[in-house]
Amino acid sequence: MTDNYSSQLFDNAVNEFSKLPGVGVRTATRLVLHLLKLENVQIEYFGQTMIKLAQDLKYCKQCNNISDTEICSICADHKRNENIICVVENVKDVIAIENTRQFNGKYHVLGGVLSPMDGVGPADLNFESLENRIKNGEIEELLLALSPNIEGDTTNFYIYKRFNKFGLTLTTLARGIAFGDELEYADEITLGRSIVNRQKFDGKNNT
Amino acid sequence: MTDNYSSQLFDNAVNEFSKLPGVGVRTATRLVLHLLKLENVQIEYFGQTMIKLAQDLKYCKQCNNISDTEICSICADHKRNENIICVVENVKDVIAIENTRQFNGKYHVLGGVLSPMDGVGPADLNFESLENRIKNGEIEELLLALSPNIEGDTTNFYIYKRFNKFGLTLTTLARGIAFGDELEYADEITLGRSIVNRQKFDGKNNT
Repeated sequence: MTDNYSSQLFDNAVNEFSKLPGVGVRTATRLVLHLLKLENVQIEYFGQTMIKLAQDLKYCKQCNNISDTEICSICADHKRNENIICVVENVKDVIAIENTRQFNGKYHVLGGVLSPMDGVGPADLNFESLENRIKNGEIEELLLALSPNIEGDTTNFYIYKRFNKFGLTLTTLARGIAFGDELEYADEITLGRSIVNRQKFDGKNNT
Repeated sequence: MTDNYSSQLFDNAVNEFSKLPGVGVRTATRLVLHLLKLENVQIEYFGQTMIKLAQDLKYCKQCNNISDTEICSICADHKRNENIICVVENVKDVIAIENTRQFNGKYHVLGGVLSPMDGVGPADLNFESLENRIKNGEIEELLLALSPNIEGDTTNFYIYKRFNKFGLTLTTLARGIAFGDELEYADEITLGRSIVNRQKFDGKNNT
């Protein structure tokens, strides 16, 4: 709670901002003071945009990605490859992969990963709709782009057990040394795997 | 501009956040994804708070501080000392001084400092209303809490020339070495002044 004493409206705005991750009261105050320097219509537009987000944002019926319409623009885009689905944990990962501009297929957002410790089982994630897409579509490949940790690996294995019978190719993101990494600081599992899965160097595309 | 392709509503929200100072597209995306994890009513409340701020926030008729009412709660608080006015540049400074809990008088927000280079003259700042307060009130002291730079000093001097005739005591914030400063890194002007204006050490209140 802030207490500027002179304006509850101001304090409320600061409080709302300071609920955001990584934003403390000082930063929140700075942000609200910045808003006050703008025209009233601009501040109102800021607020309206957030209200519209809450009221109108949908989740795509097919892939569960955020969308303005029943079916998101990625699912509706027939120029994209319909035969490969990239399976991700959440919307954040769709954005990260889209930003690379290296993937031209479709997505399926699981809404999390399997985690028995946290009580997240198969029924809590969007596997049912994934199975429907596989049964009804012309899916040839599932690219499993889940987090490289125990839960991600568990989920990958579950997907393998459940969907392998459909005769799909299952792939995962390449693991290895990241661009710009220092070898001496790479963890042993990553460095070890990157040796086992070493790639042919043909003088191009190796960065 | 962001281009997530799958939701214009989402992109609009990210754009709005990324207009804030110190918030880039990545941070803005993180903040909007955080909002999406909340209940819809919470996101709407966030937006409503900003709209209310734009529509209902006033500036105190007496001191120009932000206020929910015609006269701000500091001006309306009769428990505060009516005889001393702290003259500050903007609302940010009121908040900073209030946070110290060391000042119990009233404020007057000038709305800036004199800066001939930027075309800011006396008519652009709230001197007229300050003069009215001095003429009509029982003001005994003006504490000049302006920024310690050329423009602040110019404004202090202007206030001295204009208001000295009213027989007020004019004071400024003490200049000197800040708590926690390293002497070797203090600039020469500050260190020099703090030697000229050295304070008596009586074993208490010297930090």
